[in-house]
Amino acid sequence: MNGAKSLVSTLLKAGVDTCFSNPGTSEMHFVAALDQTPGMHCVLGLQENIVTGMADGYYRLAGKPACTLLHCGPGLSNGLGNLHNARRARSGVVNIVGDQATYHRPLDAPLTADTEALAHTVSAWVRTSRQANEVGHDAAAAVQSASTLPGQVATLILPSDTSWDEGGIVAEPLAVPVPQPADPSSVLNAARVLRNMKNVLLLVGGRQVLASTQKLAWRIAQATGAHVMADYTTARVARGQGRLPLERIPYGIDQSIEKLKRFEHIILVGTTPPVGFFAYPGKPSIKYPANAQLYTLARPDQDVEAALQALADALSAPDTAFPEAGARPEPGKGAATPESLALTVAALMPDNAIIADESVSYGRGFYPYTYAAAPHDWLHMVGGAIGNGPPVATGAALGANRERRVINLQADGSGMYTLQALWTQARERLPVTTVILNNSKYNILIGEYKNVGAKPGPTAMSMLDLGNPGIDWVKLANGMGVEAARAATLEELADLMRASFRQDAPFLIDLMV
Amino acid sequence: MNGAKSLVSTLLKAGVDTCFSNPGTSEMHFVAALDQTPGMHCVLGLQENIVTGMADGYYRLAGKPACTLLHCGPGLSNGLGNLHNARRARSGVVNIVGDQATYHRPLDAPLTADTEALAHTVSAWVRTSRQANEVGHDAAAAVQSASTLPGQVATLILPSDTSWDEGGIVAEPLAVPVPQPADPSSVLNAARVLRNMKNVLLLVGGRQVLASTQKLAWRIAQATGAHVMADYTTARVARGQGRLPLERIPYGIDQSIEKLKRFEHIILVGTTPPVGFFAYPGKPSIKYPANAQLYTLARPDQDVEAALQALADALSAPDTAFPEAGARPEPGKGAATPESLALTVAALMPDNAIIADESVSYGRGFYPYTYAAAPHDWLHMVGGAIGNGPPVATGAALGANRERRVINLQADGSGMYTLQALWTQARERLPVTTVILNNSKYNILIGEYKNVGAKPGPTAMSMLDLGNPGIDWVKLANGMGVEAARAATLEELADLMRASFRQDAPFLIDLMV
Repeated sequence: MNGAKSLVSTLLKAGVDTCFSNPGTSEMHFVAALDQTPGMHCVLGLQENIVTGMADGYYRLAGKPACTLLHCGPGLSNGLGNLHNARRARSGVVNIVGDQATYHRPLDAPLTADTEALAHTVSAWVRTSRQANEVGHDAAAAVQSASTLPGQVATLILPSDTSWDEGGIVAEPLAVPVPQPADPSSVLNAARVLRNMKNVLLLVGGRQVLASTQKLAWRIAQATGAHVMADYTTARVARGQGRLPLERIPYGIDQSIEKLKRFEHIILVGTTPPVGFFAYPGKPSIKYPANAQLYTLARPDQDVEAALQALADALSAPDTAFPEAGARPEPGKGAATPESLALTVAALMPDNAIIADESVSYGRGFYPYTYAAAPHDWLHMVGGAIGNGPPVATGAALGANRERRVINLQADGSGMYTLQALWTQARERLPVTTVILNNSKYNILIGEYKNVGAKPGPTAMSMLDLGNPGIDWVKLANGMGVEAARAATLEELADLMRASFRQDAPFLIDLMV
Repeated sequence: MNGAKSLVSTLLKAGVDTCFSNPGTSEMHFVAALDQTPGMHCVLGLQENIVTGMADGYYRLAGKPACTLLHCGPGLSNGLGNLHNARRARSGVVNIVGDQATYHRPLDAPLTADTEALAHTVSAWVRTSRQANEVGHDAAAAVQSASTLPGQVATLILPSDTSWDEGGIVAEPLAVPVPQPADPSSVLNAARVLRNMKNVLLLVGGRQVLASTQKLAWRIAQATGAHVMADYTTARVARGQGRLPLERIPYGIDQSIEKLKRFEHIILVGTTPPVGFFAYPGKPSIKYPANAQLYTLARPDQDVEAALQALADALSAPDTAFPEAGARPEPGKGAATPESLALTVAALMPDNAIIADESVSYGRGFYPYTYAAAPHDWLHMVGGAIGNGPPVATGAALGANRERRVINLQADGSGMYTLQALWTQARERLPVTTVILNNSKYNILIGEYKNVGAKPGPTAMSMLDLGNPGIDWVKLANGMGVEAARAATLEELADLMRASFRQDAPFLIDLMV
C-alpha cells in the first residue's frame, strides 16, 4: 500500500468522508487513491479559496471536519483567505497540501514555495510527512487536531514521494480530547458578580451559540437582572421562533460603544473581549467602557455549556420561557430597504433554513427584523476576509446533507471574490438560494471614506465604484450553470425565492438595492 | 502632511505612477491621498490576485514597477499566488499592504494576521513602517528594491496610523544599483569551453530574452558551433520576424531529457540549471544529462547583455544575420488543433503584439509554428501558479500604454482562477483579445494521471472534469462588460480576431478545442 492509500483509508476510518479539492500534478497519487478507495465524496472547487471556504461552511453544519486537497504552496496561498476565516470561526479543517517530493524540493523548481511558513499563518497544527510509512499516523493526528473543540485548522503537507512510495500504514483514529471544564473559581466568581453587581452583561459567542446555550444564559439573566448579548464575531447562531431574540454587538465602533456604555461588568462566555475591526483616529479600539470589569466564565476552548449549567445551578436560576418572538413577519413591498428586505427574508424562509450572511454594510440591521422568522441557523463571516459567503453557503449545504435550504445574503463586491462557488453549487445540485445585494459599489468603503473627512473624488471613486461597467450577476450565474433572475422589487424577490425553495437546485437572485 | 500623502508623493517622485488596488478600511487615508495628489493612475481589481498579476504584467512591459494596494494580511494572502509568479518572473512590484494600526494590532482584531510572515514568502524586501515620518523613506527604499534588476517584490506594510498621523516627509528617490558585471573569469571560462568543446548549449533565460541578447547569443553560436536555446521559465521573449527562431526547453521531463541529451556542456546565461516542475517516480529531477558540465556566464542578477558582449568579443565572433523565419503562415481551417491554432494566431497577430500565454497543456507546441509571425513579445507563466494569464494580459496592456494588442491564450481551467480580470479590461477599455482554449477539463491533470498507471474513474474525474455543468465563457465575459463570442472553427476564430483587433476594447473568444 502506498502512502496515498494509507492516507485515504485513515481519513475514512476517522470519519472524514468529504474532500473539498483542487488538485494538481503533485497530488495525482492521492487522486488515484481516492478513486480506488470507495467512501469519500470529492467536491471540486474552481479556485482554492472556494475549496477552503466550503470546508469552513461544512464544519459549521456537520460538526466534524472535511479534508481539503490543495496543490503546493501557491495552491495553499490561494486558499489562505478563507482558512483565515475558518481559523477565526473556529472551524475544524483537515487541510491537506500536496507538495514537491522530498528530494525535488532542494532544486527550487518553479512551484516551490515556503509551504510550512504559509501554513503556520492560519493553522493550529502543521506537519510535513517525511516518508510513506508516516502518512497514516500523521493523517490521524491531523484529524485529531482539527476535531479538537472548538475546532481548528490542521495542515498536513505531503511531499509527493510520501504519497507514491510503498510502505503506507493505515492508522487508527486518535481520541479527540474532550473540552476542558472551566475553572470552578470562574463559575463562583461569575455567580458572585451576577448576584451582587448591577449593569452586568453576559456576552456569549465563539463557534456557535446554540439554543441550549441561549436557554441557560437566559435563565441566568432572568434570575439576576443581567443582560445577554451575542458577540459580533460568532460563527453560528440558532435563531427564529423558539429561540432567544438575542441582540448582537454591532460592527461599528461608535454604535458598539453606545450599545455597551451602560455595562460595568462583562462576563465572557466562550468568547474574547469585544474590540473594533479597525482603529480609527481619535476613537477607542475597544467596544466596551474602559472602566468596565471583564470576567471569563469559559474560554472558547473550554466546555461553555457545562460552565453555563454550573453557573445556573450556583445561582439556582429557575427554568423560564424565552420571550415571545411575535407573529411571523409579512414580506415587504416595493423597492428594498435593509429593514424591508430582512422582513421579507424572515417571512419566506422555510423551517430550519441556513442563512449564510455576507451582506456586509447593507445587512448591519438585519437582526431585529428576523427574530420572528421560522427556526433557522445564521452563519456569520467572522474573520473579515471577504469572499466567505458563497463557499460557506456551498459547504453548509453539504454539511447539512442537502436537507436544509441555504440562503446566501451576499454583497456584490464580496461576492465577486469567490463567484466560482456557484459552479460547484450547480455541479452538486445544492439547495442554495443566493440573493445578491447589488448596489454596484464597495459601499462599506464609501462609508469609511467619509470618516476621513472628505467626499471621494474621481480617483477615490475609481477604487470604490463597481458600476463601470455594471456587473450582470444573472449572466455570471448562467455562465456557471446556475439559474438566475433579477429582482427590482421585494414582490419580485418574494416570487423568485418561493420558486427557488421548491427546487432541489441552486438559484441566484440579483436584487437591486 | 500625513504619512499617506508623503507616500503618494514619494512614489510619484520615484516614477511610480500606476497603482493596482483593492483597498479596504485600513487604507482609506491612502485612497484619500491618491485622490488629493494628481498623477497616479489607479486601477481596481475585483480580487487581489488580479491586482498582483496586473502588477506583474505591467512590469514586464513598462520595465518599471507599479505599486499595489492591498488590505491587511488576508488581502495579501489573496494576492500571493500571482506574487509568487511575479517573484519567479523577476518582476519588480512595490507591494503596499495597509494593516492594523500599531496600537490596535495587539488586540488581535478579526482581520489581524501575520502579515510579515506572509510577505516574506514572496518578497525580497519586507518592511513595516513604524511611524508617519518613516513612511516616505520606506517607500523610496521599496521602490529602490523593486527596481533593482532583475526585478523583485518589495513589500511595504503600513499600519493605518502611520498613514493618518501627521509628520510625513516626502523622500527623494534612491539610486537603483546597476547590475553587477559578470565575473571576468566566467567569460574567459565560457570562451574556453566554446572554443574547445563539442556539444555545447548556450541556455538563455531569466527575466527577458530581448532581440539584442538573442543577436549576441546567435553570433557566439555561429562562431563556435554551439547551440542556443531558451529556458522554459523565461518571463518574456522577443519573437517573430527579425528575431531568432529560438527553441525553448520543453515542459515535460521526458521531452526535455530527450531534447538535452546530446549536450555535454551547458553555459547558463541569466538563468539557473533547468529542472523539472515536479518529480515523477523513477525519473530524474533534472532536465540535463547528469554528466553534463554546467557553467554560469552570468547570473540573473548580473549584467547578462554585457557578459554576452564580452564573450562575443573574446571569441571575435563576427556579426551575422538570423536565419530567415520564412513566410508568414496562413490561418488554419476547420476544427482547431494545437498546430493549426498556433498558425492562425501567427498569421493574424498585428505587428508588435503581446502574447500572454497561459495555454498550459494545449499550448506546449505553439512555439515552432509562430516563428514567422509579425514581431511580437511572448509572455510566459513562469511560476506555475495558475491564474496568471488574464491579469498579466491586463497589466501588460497598461504597461504598453494601451498601444499594443494583447492576445491572451488562456486555458479554461486556469482562466476560471482569475476571470475577474475581464472586468478591469472592460473598465479600462484595454486592447486585450482573450482566446479561451475550452476543453472543459483540467487536461494537464488527466495527462499526469495516466502517469500513475491507471485510467481515471468517476471519483478522479469528479476532480478533473469541468464539463458538468459546462462553463459558458461568453456569458461570463458579458456579465463583466466584455463583448464575447464562441468559435467552433478556426475560420470563425479568425473572423472574430480580426474584428477585435479593430476595436480599442477587450474581446473574448470562447474557442472549442
